[in-house]
Amino acid sequence: MRPSGRAPDEMRAITIETGYTKHAEGSCLISFGETRVLCTASVEDRIPPWLRGKGEGWVTGEYSMLPRATHTRGQREAAKGKQSGRTQEIQRLIGRSLRSVVDLKKLGEHQITLDCDVLQADGGTRTASISGAWVALRLAVDGLMKSGAVTQDPISAKIAAISCGIYKGTPVLDLDYPEDSSADADANFVLIEGGKIAEAQATAEGAPYDEEGFLRLLRLAQIGCGQIFKAQEEATRK
Amino acid sequence: MRPSGRAPDEMRAITIETGYTKHAEGSCLISFGETRVLCTASVEDRIPPWLRGKGEGWVTGEYSMLPRATHTRGQREAAKGKQSGRTQEIQRLIGRSLRSVVDLKKLGEHQITLDCDVLQADGGTRTASISGAWVALRLAVDGLMKSGAVTQDPISAKIAAISCGIYKGTPVLDLDYPEDSSADADANFVLIEGGKIAEAQATAEGAPYDEEGFLRLLRLAQIGCGQIFKAQEEATRK
Amino acid sequence: MRPSGRAPDEMRAITIETGYTKHAEGSCLISFGETRVLCTASVEDRIPPWLRGKGEGWVTGEYSMLPRATHTRGQREAAKGKQSGRTQEIQRLIGRSLRSVVDLKKLGEHQITLDCDVLQADGGTRTASISGAWVALRLAVDGLMKSGAVTQDPISAKIAAISCGIYKGTPVLDLDYPEDSSADADANFVLIEGGKIAEAQATAEGAPYDEEGFLRLLRLAQIGCGQIFKAQEEATRK
Amino acid sequence: MRPSGRAPDEMRAITIETGYTKHAEGSCLISFGETRVLCTASVEDRIPPWLRGKGEGWVTGEYSMLPRATHTRGQREAAKGKQSGRTQEIQRLIGRSLRSVVDLKKLGEHQITLDCDVLQADGGTRTASISGAWVALRLAVDGLMKSGAVTQDPISAKIAAISCGIYKGTPVLDLDYPEDSSADADANFVLIEGGKIAEAQATAEGAPYDEEGFLRLLRLAQIGCGQIFKAQEEATRK
Amino acid sequence: MRPSGRAPDEMRAITIETGYTKHAEGSCLISFGETRVLCTASVEDRIPPWLRGKGEGWVTGEYSMLPRATHTRGQREAAKGKQSGRTQEIQRLIGRSLRSVVDLKKLGEHQITLDCDVLQADGGTRTASISGAWVALRLAVDGLMKSGAVTQDPISAKIAAISCGIYKGTPVLDLDYPEDSSADADANFVLIEGGKIAEAQATAEGAPYDEEGFLRLLRLAQIGCGQIFKAQEEATRK
Amino acid sequence: MRPSGRAPDEMRAITIETGYTKHAEGSCLISFGETRVLCTASVEDRIPPWLRGKGEGWVTGEYSMLPRATHTRGQREAAKGKQSGRTQEIQRLIGRSLRSVVDLKKLGEHQITLDCDVLQADGGTRTASISGAWVALRLAVDGLMKSGAVTQDPISAKIAAISCGIYKGTPVLDLDYPEDSSADADANFVLIEGGKIAEAQATAEGAPYDEEGFLRLLRLAQIGCGQIFKAQEEATRK
Repeated sequence: MRPSGRAPDEMRAITIETGYTKHAEGSCLISFGETRVLCTASVEDRIPPWLRGKGEGWVTGEYSMLPRATHTRGQREAAKGKQSGRTQEIQRLIGRSLRSVVDLKKLGEHQITLDCDVLQADGGTRTASISGAWVALRLAVDGLMKSGAVTQDPISAKIAAISCGIYKGTPVLDLDYPEDSSADADANFVLIEGGKIAEAQATAEGAPYDEEGFLRLLRLAQIGCGQIFKAQEEATRK
Repeated sequence: MRPSGRAPDEMRAITIETGYTKHAEGSCLISFGETRVLCTASVEDRIPPWLRGKGEGWVTGEYSMLPRATHTRGQREAAKGKQSGRTQEIQRLIGRSLRSVVDLKKLGEHQITLDCDVLQADGGTRTASISGAWVALRLAVDGLMKSGAVTQDPISAKIAAISCGIYKGTPVLDLDYPEDSSADADANFVLIEGGKIAEAQATAEGAPYDEEGFLRLLRLAQIGCGQIFKAQEEATRK
Repeated sequence: MRPSGRAPDEMRAITIETGYTKHAEGSCLISFGETRVLCTASVEDRIPPWLRGKGEGWVTGEYSMLPRATHTRGQREAAKGKQSGRTQEIQRLIGRSLRSVVDLKKLGEHQITLDCDVLQADGGTRTASISGAWVALRLAVDGLMKSGAVTQDPISAKIAAISCGIYKGTPVLDLDYPEDSSADADANFVLIEGGKIAEAQATAEGAPYDEEGFLRLLRLAQIGCGQIFKAQEEATRK
Repeated sequence: MRPSGRAPDEMRAITIETGYTKHAEGSCLISFGETRVLCTASVEDRIPPWLRGKGEGWVTGEYSMLPRATHTRGQREAAKGKQSGRTQEIQRLIGRSLRSVVDLKKLGEHQITLDCDVLQADGGTRTASISGAWVALRLAVDGLMKSGAVTQDPISAKIAAISCGIYKGTPVLDLDYPEDSSADADANFVLIEGGKIAEAQATAEGAPYDEEGFLRLLRLAQIGCGQIFKAQEEATRK
Repeated sequence: MRPSGRAPDEMRAITIETGYTKHAEGSCLISFGETRVLCTASVEDRIPPWLRGKGEGWVTGEYSMLPRATHTRGQREAAKGKQSGRTQEIQRLIGRSLRSVVDLKKLGEHQITLDCDVLQADGGTRTASISGAWVALRLAVDGLMKSGAVTQDPISAKIAAISCGIYKGTPVLDLDYPEDSSADADANFVLIEGGKIAEAQATAEGAPYDEEGFLRLLRLAQIGCGQIFKAQEEATRK
Repeated sequence: MRPSGRAPDEMRAITIETGYTKHAEGSCLISFGETRVLCTASVEDRIPPWLRGKGEGWVTGEYSMLPRATHTRGQREAAKGKQSGRTQEIQRLIGRSLRSVVDLKKLGEHQITLDCDVLQADGGTRTASISGAWVALRLAVDGLMKSGAVTQDPISAKIAAISCGIYKGTPVLDLDYPEDSSADADANFVLIEGGKIAEAQATAEGAPYDEEGFLRLLRLAQIGCGQIFKAQEEATRK
């Protein structure tokens, strides 16, 4: 029995509010239940040094939690003077995931930075970040195409992410904080619309799992990402 | 003529949405027009080393802008590894201002940290921060009093802050970004309900001002803070 | 056809030289082909603050590359003043993996730090690090048991790690640098002797993969880890 | 009654010793009573990136206290690895104040850095710094004009700064350390010769003040700055 | 021929002005010609962790150059966020040298920090620092003895330091900046009154030297330190 | 009597294994008894900014100890975020020593970085580093000459370093850790084949020494370096 009373394959409510901030070229506030992440896409003309002169662009991600996004206040990373290992790991994952659905040649010499700032955390902040970052990216690229700065759509597909885990022996979808903090195994999947896997990370926290367990988690993730793709579609349709 | 069409003594719309995040002991999202700041108050039992054993508490402030709160993306301070001089100056101002209306002995051995995170910036982020921080503080202290952890109200009065400036020769209230970036002089006032001044900072950016000019700005600030006090009252009444 | 001429399911030669340094409580130099990592286990009596008074121990990992372990010299992280995101991600993985086969209660109030320093890199440095760290840990724990500081063996099983990937369309085992730098997908598996999975991380670099692809990589990893378990057994038998 | 026995509107002795160091283009050792600050002006041809190609110069300030300038030794900021919020706030104030009397176009493509290093502190270090920095700046600009590197005097007026405060209920001029550490309110004024205000900062430390209190402090500041302008004139005359 | 016209074994004028700052327990401004260093001794009751409970004290040194002590302005180490290798090397030398003439047991549980801040540099800043630090230390220890906090004199002898070098083929004493920047070899000697050597460091910058060359430099150093001992005696006599 | 039973003028066994790593342009693992240092020479075409356009090259050194090279584990400098004063002092010594036997004009616009990483420490790590760095440098320069990138040999002589000290009243050669940690005086000599001195550093740890004592240490160093030169010759002959 899940603390929230959800069925094992039941997601929390997903909401995506686009245009949440006025300065960013693309933005949304995405919620997976009580987890809320502000995702913005910033387009800049300067690209990283190693890409200069290649006619290609770049997509990268940054991630942060507001100090009181969590149950107890965490020290601000800017005050500590460095980003934690966890923050850096998530940033790398966001960038890598989004790049897997972008053709950097078609993007041309633009850099798009996806900032994912967690306003409130209740489990699944990295997966909400990736899913919302895609929306912000889609909106920013739409703007580039409308203005003529980009002529061919560089985004090849939707991408979404969801966590799954083995909680009290049962594989469950979309872990909230109470589940996340006591799951035996915990996995994050980044899936591409159409069925392919961009990234799979599964960690045994309490008890190791086997091939069968892994596959059950993957199938839950496919259910969850299906719903996220739908929410992304609605949010960006118009 | 102001770019926004406002009268010289006209504030932007103020909105205060309390309980914006669920983990903080007090929180609100405050807007001064398009400027939006998330203010949270976090209560902790540990106090700074220099206060130990004195039976007193502490109130402190932290401030940050999300990287894309502004027209162009700013580098994340956590990534740069240090907080800018501007950030530190504002943080010190927030803490000092709030402490001026708190009796630290009545607060007892609690530390309250007021985090002010700017989601969207359009001028006046520091004054919105102070004004919203008071609301978050009030809510957190109400909680401490309800639980019996604090018995006498340590907050002596409301405190609010507003910017004023001399824009194209005319003293105006509550500068927005287009005004702020081209004002001749720029002042921030932190006023206490009842008419006293907690802090006044006036800087000549373009042309120095005189005593008369200063007094005209102060009077505008009194008008503006009167409206903020009213909004604070409504937000925390219940 | 692999650049090295190896069969798809063929590992590079594994060698493990124990007792490589005299000061560490456990140490080995592990080689996966041309990749060479010095792994040491250091036992200390102090434990992290959050574990004090619980009667439990801690196992953690650190990782670094010597500046000229690679084709071109990399700047020393100590000179840059911070560890890269990649370094921190690998350190976290090493610690998490080893802890998954250690009963921290049986370890008692000891902290064991596993330092993995890459002397020469040719692909697979993180997997060689985990596999060698287990050997260093085993030797250090043997010492604690011989001295009576620990009475029940806290290590529940062997653990090993190996990389696999899809190289020119073919799933292959134990990527060397030329393969790693041009693989379509790249996975790292951390497996526990007996068949369970402690950690699986699979990333699509070029082309996303599907469930079937993932399973083929996992099966290669099981072959590879089988050989590592054998080498670990020989190295620590005596 | 002031601890020093001074009248409320009585300054401490001001001395300005020019040419205190031989390498700087301008320098002085300024004393406000026991407070002693070494101010140097360094002229460089490189200007900040954002000014390149505009034909303008730049004036900036830096500030530091020697570790034993104060009653108890403070840790060296270079050893701590960062400058405090207080240091940064004062640096920003020094630069902003001096720039308010310099025409950057007339200065041409030169950067002048005003270093203010406190050798001994007894209250009023920031105001002595600004007042002495003007002398160093004047001497450095005189040199640029003598050499022909600058043809029109870019300095439009003298600038000076002084602290005032409400001490035991009485407004007093030029706080020394014993007054500063127990004043109810504390203000710093940066005034331009002729009567204009460049910067006013007034903070209620103990009890908030009102408009009348503020004006009394401002008038004291006008008396004090009058005396500093005279000392600056004598120091730079010849 | 030396640029200054001095004879090969001729020192620059040495002056020592004691009591230069009022807060430090001991202080002096020492000059070797145009090189001027402010040396302060700060006594604190806290001692480093590794000495706690041993009934011993500690003596340590810190060193810094003001940014414009030199011909061209150097960036402030506090702004760069770290101390250079050169600074750290000199700090270690100052502390080690002074400790060689202090009996830490007789000092008792006091820490004395010797801050050496270079106000103006013209060669020989480290040797002037050590020579002046001894004076500041002597004065601080005199104070501890007068107050009864220390009962037996912990200082066993005077210590002084001087640079020598081979300049255009000739061994010369007390290098000034023009000599220092073009010497073939450059040595710093720290000598104890009575003839012993505490530290000798000789570096071939241009051409290596031999045993005979080294001995000639040592003899010059003995002449120079003799004169410094005399100046130290006069400064601290009374 | 020395703890190791060695005669006062007896070195530990020296071994030099060249080609220890495959990526570096020159490398060796050098051992002085139980002290083992991996030295690599990395050739790069970019040179430091201050040398650009002069047609000269640069030689520099870096030094680090693996965390468990010593009896007790030391914190990783990359994790602390800065290099210790000791590390920086040794790095500067390595670079300066090697440059004293290299003609930077003949080297042309190449930078050679000598990385000295201590795998195991038992006294004398800096002297083993310098001695091994010469071998790595020799091998790298041989490569540059073979390829024609350098036409005239820029290395003028061999250079070697050794420590000596006064241990229980007796001057001894090549201190190991037990001697080093309790010696009265401790010296490091960097000698050039042929008899010249590049660098001499002698420190009184316990009791100061005199001219005679210094000369006896220097003569021991000449014996020791003679043996190192022979080992360098054999290692690089081929």
